[in-house]
Amino acid sequence: MRSDCHVCRSEGFEVHARVKVSLNGKSILATLNTTQDGLLKPGEVSLSNYAWELLDAKENEEVFLSHPKPLQSLSLVRAKVYGNELATHEIQHIIEDIAKGRYSDIHIATFISACAGGRLSHREIIDLTKAMVNMGQQITWPNTMVVDKHCVGGLPGNRTTLIIVPIVAAFGLIIPKTSSRAITSPAGTADTMETLAPVDLSINDIQRVIEQEGGCVVWGGAVQLSPADDILIRVERAIELDSEGQLIASVLSKKIAAGSTHIAIDIPFGPTAKIRSLNQAEKIKSLFECVAATLGTRVAISITDGSQPVGRGIGPALEAKDVLAVLQNTPDAPNDLRERALTLAGTIIEFSPDVKEGEGKAIATKLLDEGKAWQKFQAICKAQGELREPPSAKFTHPITAKGKGRIVNINNRQLSRVAKLAGAPFDSAAGVVLHTPLQTTVEKDQPLFTIHADSKGELNYALSLVLEDPNIIQLEAYT
Amino acid sequence: MRSDCHVCRSEGFEVHARVKVSLNGKSILATLNTTQDGLLKPGEVSLSNYAWELLDAKENEEVFLSHPKPLQSLSLVRAKVYGNELATHEIQHIIEDIAKGRYSDIHIATFISACAGGRLSHREIIDLTKAMVNMGQQITWPNTMVVDKHCVGGLPGNRTTLIIVPIVAAFGLIIPKTSSRAITSPAGTADTMETLAPVDLSINDIQRVIEQEGGCVVWGGAVQLSPADDILIRVERAIELDSEGQLIASVLSKKIAAGSTHIAIDIPFGPTAKIRSLNQAEKIKSLFECVAATLGTRVAISITDGSQPVGRGIGPALEAKDVLAVLQNTPDAPNDLRERALTLAGTIIEFSPDVKEGEGKAIATKLLDEGKAWQKFQAICKAQGELREPPSAKFTHPITAKGKGRIVNINNRQLSRVAKLAGAPFDSAAGVVLHTPLQTTVEKDQPLFTIHADSKGELNYALSLVLEDPNIIQLEAYT
Repeated sequence: MRSDCHVCRSEGFEVHARVKVSLNGKSILATLNTTQDGLLKPGEVSLSNYAWELLDAKENEEVFLSHPKPLQSLSLVRAKVYGNELATHEIQHIIEDIAKGRYSDIHIATFISACAGGRLSHREIIDLTKAMVNMGQQITWPNTMVVDKHCVGGLPGNRTTLIIVPIVAAFGLIIPKTSSRAITSPAGTADTMETLAPVDLSINDIQRVIEQEGGCVVWGGAVQLSPADDILIRVERAIELDSEGQLIASVLSKKIAAGSTHIAIDIPFGPTAKIRSLNQAEKIKSLFECVAATLGTRVAISITDGSQPVGRGIGPALEAKDVLAVLQNTPDAPNDLRERALTLAGTIIEFSPDVKEGEGKAIATKLLDEGKAWQKFQAICKAQGELREPPSAKFTHPITAKGKGRIVNINNRQLSRVAKLAGAPFDSAAGVVLHTPLQTTVEKDQPLFTIHADSKGELNYALSLVLEDPNIIQLEAYT
Repeated sequence: MRSDCHVCRSEGFEVHARVKVSLNGKSILATLNTTQDGLLKPGEVSLSNYAWELLDAKENEEVFLSHPKPLQSLSLVRAKVYGNELATHEIQHIIEDIAKGRYSDIHIATFISACAGGRLSHREIIDLTKAMVNMGQQITWPNTMVVDKHCVGGLPGNRTTLIIVPIVAAFGLIIPKTSSRAITSPAGTADTMETLAPVDLSINDIQRVIEQEGGCVVWGGAVQLSPADDILIRVERAIELDSEGQLIASVLSKKIAAGSTHIAIDIPFGPTAKIRSLNQAEKIKSLFECVAATLGTRVAISITDGSQPVGRGIGPALEAKDVLAVLQNTPDAPNDLRERALTLAGTIIEFSPDVKEGEGKAIATKLLDEGKAWQKFQAICKAQGELREPPSAKFTHPITAKGKGRIVNINNRQLSRVAKLAGAPFDSAAGVVLHTPLQTTVEKDQPLFTIHADSKGELNYALSLVLEDPNIIQLEAYT
């Protein structure tokens, strides 16, 4: 709004004020930005896209502005800041206000930091999970066993989901997998899947695909599962605060809302992974087990090596090509991606009462090697709409070794940045292919990695970062 | 920026991203908002007024955008969230980044809540205060004793400052008072003073006024004293979190930066005041004393009754008229305002080595009664630029008693809201005059309060709230 308009002046609305905006019986709480120049006339308001959607507003409609009632649940957030334990209904109250968009980012950040540092009791984590489930849509299944998988904290290129889902579905279990798009990374699982099939499915479509094929890989954002979690995650990312309690409530609420009964959880740890130490991984594992048990959900948790990226491609289509190579058993398929996928698929298969402990991985391997997983994957893609060929980039440019040596270090963060500058994830064909994992020995002028881009401009943009930082891949000369 | 512009796409800037904006050797960290429509062309950016000022930008200049380096100090904030005690240089690092505008509101809210709930040690509060002082301008004085006053948490109409400053200056002490403008209230001390004299003075002008008259009342926002505090306070207000540690660092950093050596602090407590209980007031008092002693600052702390508003006027000019009535000793001057001002002025005068304990108030009373304070006030106003007549509103409207009775309750919050709807503090003449304090007995149709407004529209706006809530002033019928 204009800061000098009569509504701002008489209501005393100042920049950053929380304002209730009502239209046709709907209302939202918005944070006010003010302008002084000609963008708006006195009495006019401009809304964010998010607000337009929530209010279902049309241009030139008349909105009603007022001071919002003080949010009662903020006093509960303050109580948590002061170290009090919150009751079940108090947590429900906070999560309801968050899910309905009543909290500003400042309020959400306060709630998140009040809960961090081990300040949530087990009961509070359980109540938080339940409250988050209850605030969104829930999918129900006729099956008594519905399986799922989750990986805590990303490793670049770790697209095991696209291999695990068809293996598990080919085995005969129900696995309705919802995945996210990239936020800060060059590709999310949903972005990668989208280069192979549509992922933007409604709940009805998801149910139809599962009925037909037993498995799917769809974008979770299209269905409103645990919407409070989506809101909390956005702010958690901004402060890079992933408290253990919130992490567990986040993962379990999404899975329970999706109707899952048995969940395999992968916790990779390593210096560049989200979980840095084995100790921290063990702690999260036991917390997951305790909370899940109370909620009546079975979990199988693997702590795995997270010291290296997985596969070769970084970027949606390039990662999809790694996945296809594994599913099609081509000789050059990245073995690390295959092995991780088979181990996790085995864990999930062992949820089945007919399978003995330790036999799952062999079953998974057989399904993959005999082409059953690849058949199932094609059927899932067709059921989701169509099976697509992942696109290839117009321009490629290899980065070569300056001398002979052995690869001793790979800066995953910088490699991801190169992929993003090249256009990933928006240009789905763009990204980076890594040719030389750790310990590879290379000759002078041998390609280390190749940049893929859809425009000369983006290719040059990515190249300029490589020139600026020659140590993205570090060689140790050997004699 | 436009979300589809090449810079957003190649850099991967998404809505809410933190972006470094550089121009002519200056740079800021900004939070990105994106637009899709015709407001901006691809490659164009629009800046907030705050950003324009910080960058000293002109239209059509070319800015350089980049990903900011991760802020190292955020890991310290996270350490505080996890309950660690921060070292001196770590607190300095955080406060420097805050003062330089590098933290988003989300980061600031995280820091504030990590420090709340008694999680700052005495040493941390001391370091926080010092760091805040060091990040801004500091005023130095040739005098060995420079006094000041502060009131923790506002009572409506409590404009003692404008009475205390001339009394203390008339006594011969140096009192360079900086005050704030209203943020959420109908008038700040600076707004009230501005109806009587200019308050927008530079540090040089403040020093000149003090040299001439020994006292001043100016707007603190015009001088950069403890700028980190201004940033923290904005977010604290949004979450209504006033941690004790932050409160003490906030008050003392401003005063020490202003060069004060002896500070009288008023802590009113009561059900509608900021401090609710005597117990809480006592705790803050002892924390103030401990921290101030380490910093070499003398404090005298009074815990006072905060159960009622002070004076009659609510709104800049109406409060100024209360102040003038006390200074000019008119028969209808509000006695509660006079008494509070004299008590506090007495406390300050007792800082003087020549004055015995318990003698201060009598000295203050004499200076006021003999007209010395009024003379000094006029001289201070002239030194600040001119002595002004506070304006009167064009429209007034009395609200009368519906029947005979005794005043048993006054809703201060609603009364302030009526004053704001009438136009305060922007229209300095607007506001409310309360005629009947608690326990007054009134006849039917006797005026309870009068609304003052500069336009019919605003008057009606205020009246509609009064009609909506007939219990702003509650009567108990008596026989």
